Amino acid sequence: MGEFELIERHFVRATPRAALGPGDDCALLAPAPGQQLAVTSDMLLEGRHFLATVPPVRLGHKALAVNLSDLAACGARPLAFTLALSLPRADEGFAAALARGLFALADAHDVELVGGDTTAGALSLCITAIGEVPAGGALLRSGARAGDQLWVSGHLGDARLALEVFRGHAALPAADFEAVRLAMECPQPRVALGLALRGLASSAIDVSDGLLGDLGHILRRSRVGARLELSALPCSAALAAQPQALRQECLLRGGDDYELLFTAPPHREAAGVAGGVAVTPIGVITAEPGLLAVDHDGRVQALPARGFDHFA
Amino acid sequence: MGEFELIERHFVRATPRAALGPGDDCALLAPAPGQQLAVTSDMLLEGRHFLATVPPVRLGHKALAVNLSDLAACGARPLAFTLALSLPRADEGFAAALARGLFALADAHDVELVGGDTTAGALSLCITAIGEVPAGGALLRSGARAGDQLWVSGHLGDARLALEVFRGHAALPAADFEAVRLAMECPQPRVALGLALRGLASSAIDVSDGLLGDLGHILRRSRVGARLELSALPCSAALAAQPQALRQECLLRGGDDYELLFTAPPHREAAGVAGGVAVTPIGVITAEPGLLAVDHDGRVQALPARGFDHFA
Repeated sequence: MGEFELIERHFVRATPRAALGPGDDCALLAPAPGQQLAVTSDMLLEGRHFLATVPPVRLGHKALAVNLSDLAACGARPLAFTLALSLPRADEGFAAALARGLFALADAHDVELVGGDTTAGALSLCITAIGEVPAGGALLRSGARAGDQLWVSGHLGDARLALEVFRGHAALPAADFEAVRLAMECPQPRVALGLALRGLASSAIDVSDGLLGDLGHILRRSRVGARLELSALPCSAALAAQPQALRQECLLRGGDDYELLFTAPPHREAAGVAGGVAVTPIGVITAEPGLLAVDHDGRVQALPARGFDHFA
Repeated sequence: MGEFELIERHFVRATPRAALGPGDDCALLAPAPGQQLAVTSDMLLEGRHFLATVPPVRLGHKALAVNLSDLAACGARPLAFTLALSLPRADEGFAAALARGLFALADAHDVELVGGDTTAGALSLCITAIGEVPAGGALLRSGARAGDQLWVSGHLGDARLALEVFRGHAALPAADFEAVRLAMECPQPRVALGLALRGLASSAIDVSDGLLGDLGHILRRSRVGARLELSALPCSAALAAQPQALRQECLLRGGDDYELLFTAPPHREAAGVAGGVAVTPIGVITAEPGLLAVDHDGRVQALPARGFDHFA
């Protein structure tokens, strides 16, 4: 099977929302009046962003999920995406499973694959996702203000815990391993929450590089500081059962969580936001720059707000 | 130097055309009313799309050029692009040269780098370019009609000739080699020509997979055939001096030309189109499907309209 047949069979589908779908030099989109376009690109490389052991159906899901997560963090509604795919060979079973995972998530969010590129090479996926957001309504990293509450969706650290198991640094009962592995390989982008936070959150980011690193982006862009309650960080039962040092590492510097971290003025009822996922208050924004953490015994320590660096 | 410093220093610049540039979860674009958005993605991998010998300044140019070429083939005006970059290490000299080539071309076409992704890994670049085109005004592959003339811009085959020299299958005088190497490593996207062809061309495509393959896309999408005059194919002096078999291979199946191949009704004066590059009539569209080529002696032969396949 050649390149064009492989694409035609597994990746070309009807695209009723687009003015023109795959098959020409470009796709054409017709944005609604008054909307701005939110654009984000993420590349996933084997060995860097996923392990060779990942089932292809989950890899297809994740490649799109991490991009939809960026749209969610801006409060944008997903519209379309392109996929540049590099595959070692035209393996039809692999391509079919990858497409199944990709389109299951795409259908769940009514977002269309409108174009892209396929090539032979080491396995990698580069997706660019495009969403719509009312002009002036996007959630930015720069809007946090002193006195705002700090919130995070879902729970943190499971993806990192799964990675530690794959690395042989931790061991889990089978059911717990499957649960944290699903968090790592099949993250759920918080699209509905992002939409619900429009007009409510003062700033937002998705947690991809670890809580401290991504919180650091909000603090720097907003020119504020934060006081974080370590005992409030939401945590799965599997992670709660781990030794304290590993648990804290996963919660604070885990990465690959794809939860939304956001700030909101205290009078706004963020706790009741209808985004299909629980949100937890984990601290407060302060006027003084820097990040202070309050531990379980009430002791306060300064933490470096720095995230994962691919070249460090 | 870490990932964030490398990006900040070399790839982050002011983006006055975008509503929001790099640095947040998404970039924000504000499309003009009445415009559709043309979107295209192309990925370049070392060893597949460029050789390890390419100067990084030319690689930066080419990664953007191939995407602008797709916009040109739709008659779209470039607006913004994202870059997902995978680099083996944070090599500042390499990154600086890559950025120089990228931004020189971006500036020439008034298009802005609004976001992207950086990771450590085998050298690859994935660019998604976004352009604007008046609703209903895009040049498509599907509009060719029997009786239309077939045109191509510039000349064909030089990039393939350069590749044959790198492969040791051909030899050239130094000045000729430098010229064809420039065609391979520094293609010029025909953006002005694409804009000038709006309302004039009935179909268009850019020649990236070779003339026969890309003409085949127009013929299949338009459900027509073509009669190609081999003696009319525009050719550089360096390629004209090559043996006939190599010359014809480069002209017909060369690839990496990034010239525009388009059709226009015979009464429209395509010859005088103001796109800053010469255009040459090379044949005619026929009602019967299939591709016939008329050779230098007037003999007619059927040709397979098939292009480069990464998995063949």
